[in-house]
Parts: sequence; structure tokens; C-alpha cells
Amino acid sequence: MAKAPQNAISPTRSEDYPEWYQQVIKAADMAEASPVRGCMVIKPWGYMLWENMQRALDDKFKETGHQNAYFPLLIPMSFLEKEAEHVEGFAKECAVVTHHRLEPDPNGGLRPAGPLEEPLIIRPTSETIIGASYAKWVQSWRDLPIKINQWANVLRWEMRTRLFLRTAEFLWQEGHTVHATAEEAIEETQMMVDVYAEFAEGWMAMPVIRGSKTAAERFPGAVDTLSIEAMMQDRKALQAGTSHFLGQNFSKAQQIQFQDHDGDLQYAWTTSWGVSTRLIGALIMTHSDDDGLVLPPRLAPTQVVLLPIYRDEQQRDYVLEYVHDLKKELQSQTMAGAPIRVDIDDRDMRGGEKKWYHVKRGVPIRVEVGPKDIAKQAAFVSRRDTGKSVPLGREELVESIGDLLADIQQELFDRALKHREDNSCKIDNEADFRAYFTPKNEDSPEPHGGFAYCYFAEEKDLEPLLKELKVTIRCIPQVNNDQPGKCFLTGKPAAKQGIFAKAY
Amino acid sequence: MAKAPQNAISPTRSEDYPEWYQQVIKAADMAEASPVRGCMVIKPWGYMLWENMQRALDDKFKETGHQNAYFPLLIPMSFLEKEAEHVEGFAKECAVVTHHRLEPDPNGGLRPAGPLEEPLIIRPTSETIIGASYAKWVQSWRDLPIKINQWANVLRWEMRTRLFLRTAEFLWQEGHTVHATAEEAIEETQMMVDVYAEFAEGWMAMPVIRGSKTAAERFPGAVDTLSIEAMMQDRKALQAGTSHFLGQNFSKAQQIQFQDHDGDLQYAWTTSWGVSTRLIGALIMTHSDDDGLVLPPRLAPTQVVLLPIYRDEQQRDYVLEYVHDLKKELQSQTMAGAPIRVDIDDRDMRGGEKKWYHVKRGVPIRVEVGPKDIAKQAAFVSRRDTGKSVPLGREELVESIGDLLADIQQELFDRALKHREDNSCKIDNEADFRAYFTPKNEDSPEPHGGFAYCYFAEEKDLEPLLKELKVTIRCIPQVNNDQPGKCFLTGKPAAKQGIFAKAY
Repeated sequence: MAKAPQNAISPTRSEDYPEWYQQVIKAADMAEASPVRGCMVIKPWGYMLWENMQRALDDKFKETGHQNAYFPLLIPMSFLEKEAEHVEGFAKECAVVTHHRLEPDPNGGLRPAGPLEEPLIIRPTSETIIGASYAKWVQSWRDLPIKINQWANVLRWEMRTRLFLRTAEFLWQEGHTVHATAEEAIEETQMMVDVYAEFAEGWMAMPVIRGSKTAAERFPGAVDTLSIEAMMQDRKALQAGTSHFLGQNFSKAQQIQFQDHDGDLQYAWTTSWGVSTRLIGALIMTHSDDDGLVLPPRLAPTQVVLLPIYRDEQQRDYVLEYVHDLKKELQSQTMAGAPIRVDIDDRDMRGGEKKWYHVKRGVPIRVEVGPKDIAKQAAFVSRRDTGKSVPLGREELVESIGDLLADIQQELFDRALKHREDNSCKIDNEADFRAYFTPKNEDSPEPHGGFAYCYFAEEKDLEPLLKELKVTIRCIPQVNNDQPGKCFLTGKPAAKQGIFAKAY
Repeated sequence: MAKAPQNAISPTRSEDYPEWYQQVIKAADMAEASPVRGCMVIKPWGYMLWENMQRALDDKFKETGHQNAYFPLLIPMSFLEKEAEHVEGFAKECAVVTHHRLEPDPNGGLRPAGPLEEPLIIRPTSETIIGASYAKWVQSWRDLPIKINQWANVLRWEMRTRLFLRTAEFLWQEGHTVHATAEEAIEETQMMVDVYAEFAEGWMAMPVIRGSKTAAERFPGAVDTLSIEAMMQDRKALQAGTSHFLGQNFSKAQQIQFQDHDGDLQYAWTTSWGVSTRLIGALIMTHSDDDGLVLPPRLAPTQVVLLPIYRDEQQRDYVLEYVHDLKKELQSQTMAGAPIRVDIDDRDMRGGEKKWYHVKRGVPIRVEVGPKDIAKQAAFVSRRDTGKSVPLGREELVESIGDLLADIQQELFDRALKHREDNSCKIDNEADFRAYFTPKNEDSPEPHGGFAYCYFAEEKDLEPLLKELKVTIRCIPQVNNDQPGKCFLTGKPAAKQGIFAKAY
């Protein structure tokens, strides 16, 4: 008899982490590559997750005083030219629209026709097109602040793409705000990175570190970029959200000016901030295991799936009736203030196959119910995160379901936090730094290194070493970073520590 | 003393209907033209309305068994070529991406670089790109049906654009389903036009007529297009949503095939259906008046606005306290099952100015509260739709608010239905038809005609007359259309009546 495979996902994480990632997505039926280079198709299970993320984030944006709006997909080429660093940052990856119709090609097929006077680019981000509106809307201090968010698709022509993590087109939200003072804009920048951290930790169960980007890693055109950084299971860092203080760079480039209380004309202060479908990649790599996706309950499209078990039509009828009643009872319970999301899978399918279907899709709790369970007024309850199963009385299950889901949510967070702490260290010299980020042998598939906290003085002094080791400065953490020290490489006095890591 | 203008919107509907429409949008701060030809900026008040529409429609789609997903924005040019009628319909209005980066132009500025091997078009609709996925996903009858919806932006390069009604880029949803049988696909097509009608009538308070499009007016590539048609206040028709039975046209063009129960390979049957931000234009033109926007309560972002009135700081404090309590009480009430959406406008602004601000934005109910009202435990309640104001006791207001909003919703629908009925007639000869659609004098700004119900036999017989009068066949209504008759123009036997009208 052939032995059943030990894990649902092949290869496993330790065998080949990047390929494991692709296989988890495939097994959970979340997304796939499309015929269009670098663009993905987000399938229903992946999109439901995005919808839950959107809902939670959108509520937070509105609670913090923002409104949604929508600005054009296309940006005149000349708009991009206005802010020098910005164009430098995005010109190399813009999809360019040059024609506005197709006509029959004499050699067969179609060809572009109707050339545009000025080429248009598909937004890689919307500072320039939204700024054009803001320049019109802002006249006086009375018009400020403007706090608007947009849910949209953007496009950056990436050469190497990976589902969710890096795709040419992706979905995101971009907030764009305008303020009368630097202080207020800085406060907004901080508030939004805090909102992102709260979402990452509270909803995604993904611990993150808040910090400032160094000059070389900043958003093109920003004065300061704050980010949240998370550690994946292979110990690489992933930037999960950014919030930019743009100073007066964009308001000067776009003439966003207002009359202050004294009637003087001032340039406004702007911010922008965004998270994208990349968060789904981060979620997968934070919690999933060698059996597939593991979802934190707060974001899981289905939190509890009920699996009726029966042998014949007669059993089927009363098992289904029991299961439908149980569903209603479970739905009347809540987790984190929201009604429990329960599904019944009554498809005609072998039990083992059906179980693995939901394991691979990361449903937090599976509940099997057969005639024997009904006789005992009980059910067989399995947790996706620990893999453990226990029989539970029906009443007990219903009463404890909210707590059980909350436990899972917390344990996922704790486990990810422990992983990060176990793989973080302080390094104060080059030799240790090199050893930390160098694989023990060249062929080792084993990832190496984690988060190294190191003092550093001049970013440019580090460049050759970081390039050689393929390490980047993820951020200068905001917390516990007040004591000065010495640069790990040059020994120069250094005000702050940075987090160094290999990164996605 | 200068006399106050009689209406908030100038020109009025009877003076210049198209310009009135633009001015209503401007006065309600819903949208504006952007620097990008034909593309609009949807401002927060307009976008909130769209969000409410999305929420209601999305719930209905999910209730009827659909899931959301997301497919690429860009479509390879060759995909469009596969379905002959489809390419014919869309090739003339496609934005074409030909390059993937920008480089410095030796003459200054930037220029497109990195030419693509195959041009990509920005989706004007997604049948071809979604069909490419479906062709991969569908193997067996077990994979069917597929019922997916997508919320997305699309782009059609329109020459004459108008905010919401016709813009190059617009937001919409597009459902795309695949079925094993023609019957099931036809049923889906009908179900979705019914969903649209239910939404239009129940949420937008806009009566619609369901019917089939004639061959000349069908979606390019469809076997049958069903639509909902509404009458605007200028008596022109507006197509507010369409649902297409695509037969096997797209499955043959794209090889969407499945093995049936007998193991035979069959082409699948597909449908697509969509509504767009055009609905916002329809809403404006159905209900608004010479003072601006009028919103049906079920979709109004704010259903009740509370306007505190006070003369000094001391009054301010206790009036605001009263108003905040009142807000909470009103929010605990419901309309159509949803909590009442209440806002307080406590901005420091003249009372008249503030009142008109909300009148122009179409807030269904305004409630003014000053010290005298508080003394009487009362409030001064004004309806946007009728313009009537009455004093109401606080308790009475709270208890009746849900019913009051439901009344407004119903009366808006009834008024629009009466308008349509008053402006519909049956016509059975050319002379009457000509008279109905011809202005009494050339310079008359007065619109003319409405919905003419006429029997017709051959569509092509009518073409010269319809072209001359700028009239189109809106649809062949599904209801009360079983008796045969004679073509109003040719006298040939005709099976059905069509609705003839000028249209947006």
C-alpha cells in the first residue's frame, strides 16, 4: 500500500522555501499567473481575504477622519516630470499609453492607431495626479486639512515578479493628505503607520517593527518614510506598509498653496501612505506551514467549516438538519465583535479529500459531525494551527467558539513574535555581521541570518558590504533606540541602531 | 436690496437641462473633470454614494451565489481579435500601451522607451481576459457553473464625455459566468437583470423597464442583451444596466470546453452583466431639482443632518449636548433594516449658508435645533424632497424617523413612475411618430417626446427614420408584450412592441 504523503505541500519549507510559497498559493487556490506578463489573477479565496483586509482598514481610515475618493488611472507624462526624485524613481517602470484605438493591420491582425499628442502613463502611484486636484482645491487655510484615501489598482513594470509579493499590477490603497503645518503632516504620517501596525498585529497576527527608512530606501520625493517591517518564516524581512512625510516637495512641484490666517501665501505640507495586496503574501509567509495556508481567524473568509458525515440518504437528512441548526447557533456567537463566519461543506466527496481541501485553504476550525456525534450531542473539532482535534459537546462548542478563535488568533501572533525574537540579535563588528549573513555552505538551501540590530553612522560607508552580502537596512526602529553607540563597521559615533536583514 | 435667487441651481432644468445637470454635480461637490481627457475625479460625496451602491449590489451578488475575484487591467491585443464582433465593437476606443518605461528625451523632458513585443490594451470590458482563465479552469461539468464578479475600472476612449454619464475611465462591476447548458445561462442572464431592476427600484427609487435589446443595439458578441431602461426628467431614456447571454460565442472563440456526463467535449455557455458609475448620473437626473441634488434615503451617505443653532458660547454648549444625544437616539432607529445615518454639522457658518450646503447635497432630512426648540423638547424638521418643514416633538421625531425616510423613498419612486407614465404613449403610424419626436420649434430648449411604444417588424426598415429623428429602440419590453400587431412604419406583421426614445 502506498504511504500517504506526510505533508500536503511539496516541497516543504525547509526543502525549498520560495517554491513552497508558490505551492501554498496554488493549493489554497488563491491566485495564479495571468497571460499578461507580471500580472496576476486573484481567485475568489484570495480575493475574499483581500475584501476582509479592505473592510478592516477602511473602517480604521474612516475612524481617523479620512474619506474615500477616486482619481484617474492615467497620468500625463509631463506630470511625472515635475518632481525630480519622483520621476527618477518611477520612470523606469511605467506602462505608457501612446495610442487610443486599434485599426486593421494590412499584414493581418490589428495595430495601434490614433497616436496621442502627449503619452499617458498608468499610475505607478498617484501623488502627481492627485496633487493636480489638490492644487485647485486648496486656496485658504479653511480648506485644510484634506484627508483622502483611494482604493485602486496601480502598475509598476517589474522584471521579476512573484504572486502577491511583487506583481506588475497590484491592488492597494493610497492615502493622500494636505496640511497647513509640518507638525500636523508629521503627526498624520505617524498616525497612519500606527494604524498599519495595529492592523498587522491585531488582524493579521503579524508582529511588526515601526521605523524610519534611511535616505537610500525612502519613497522617491519623500522627506521621511516610515514603514512597518515583519519577519517571514525564512527570517527575511518584508516591508508591509509605508507612510511618507512629503514635506513641501510635492506642494512646491505642483503649486499646492494656501493663504494662511495672515493672508500670506504658503506651500502646504503633504503626506501619502499605502498598503497593498502584498500583505496577502506577508500573511502567507508568516503563518502557513507544510500543509498549506494558515489564516488568522479575524481575516479568514470562513472561520469554521462544518463537515457532515453520513453513509446513506437517511443519515444524510438528519445529519444535515443537525449541522444547519449548529451553523445558526455558531453564527449567533461573535469573535472580536463580529458574528462568526460559518460554512457547511456538504459536497459529495471522500472525507479525507474534503478535510485536506479545508486544511490547505487555512480554515481555522473544522467541525466533523456524524450520526455518532449527534447521538452524543457532540462534534469533533480540529484546529488548523496546531493540528489538534478534540471531541466537544455541542453546547460547549457553541459557548466557547468565540474564545477558541480568539485563542488561535493570539497564539499565531505569539508564535510569530517568538520566531522574530529568536532570530534577532545585536551585532557590533564586521566579522560577526559577515558570519551572520553568510550561508555555512554555498549549496545550503537553509536561509541564514535574521534581524541584526546594528549601530551605524554613514549609510554610504556601508554600501559595498551590504551590496556584497545582499543585505539592506530595513529601518531605524522608533522604539528603544535612544542611546548612542558606535558604527559596527567604521567605529564612527552613531546616534541610532538600524535593523539589517535580507528582504523581500 | 438684492433679491435672493429663487433657486440654488442656475440654470434651472427648464432653462438648460444639460447645463443644469453639470451644475447640480458641482453644487453637490460630487465630481469634476480631470486634467486627463475624458477622465473624472470622483470627489468624496460622489464616492460615498458609489460605496453605498456597491455595498447593496455586492450583497445581492453574493446572495445569488457569486464570488468576487480580480483579473488583469491589461489585455494582449491578440485576445481582442478572437471574437469578431467584439473587436469590431471595441477596437475604436481602446487605450493602447506600447512601451514599458520612460527615458530622457534629448530635446528635453521624457519619451516612451522599451517598446513591447505585443501591444496591450487597457480593458474596455473583460470577456476576453477572463475567458482566458476560464478556458484553463473549466475541464469537466464538475467545474461548472463558475459565477464570478469583479469590481474594477475600465476605459473606453470616448470622444464626447459627461461626468458620470459617459467618461473614458469609469468604475463598474462586471459579472462573468460559465454554465453547462444554454437554459442555465439564460436563467442567469434573467436573474441578473432582475437583480439590477430590484436595486434600481428599491434603492435608487428609479423605476425601470426590463427588456431585450434589438440586434443593432446588442453588446458586441452577445446573442441576447437584456437591459433596464429608465426615463430621466427631460424624458430621455437612460440604459442603467445590461445583462448579456453570450451563447457559445466567447467559449468558441476562447476554447472554454468541458467534458459532459457522457465524457463528450462541449462548449460552455457564458454570460456577462454590468452596471457602472453611470448609475450616479441616472440617480441625479431622476430625482434632483432646481435646488440641487435629491437623494433617495436608502443610498444617501447622510440621511439626517442635525443643525445646531446658537448665539453664544453658553448656548453652544447645551445645544451641542442636546444635539449629540439626539444623534445617538436617531442612530438607534432603522430604515430598511439598516441603522439611520446621522451627521451633525457644527461648523461655524451662517445658518442660511449651512442650510443650502445640505440642500444642494441632497440630504433627505435636515433637523434644526436651537434653545427654543430645546425648551419645548422639539426640533424643526425639513424634507429635502418636498421642501416642507414642520416642528416635531423630540420623541415623535425619534419614533417616526425610520418611517419618514421610508415615505420619502417611496414618494420619490412614485413621482418618478408617474413622470414616466405621463410621458409614455402608444404610437401606430409614422406621422404621429414624427410629431412626437419633433420639437415644436427649432429653437425650443424644451425636450420633446418620451417613451413611444410601437410595434415594429424589421429593424432595418426603421433605420433612416430613427437616424433622422435621433431616436433609438431602447428595448423590447418583457412584460405585457404578448399580443402581435403591425409595424407602425411599414404595416408588416410584428410580434412585439419596442420602446422608442431619445437616449443618453
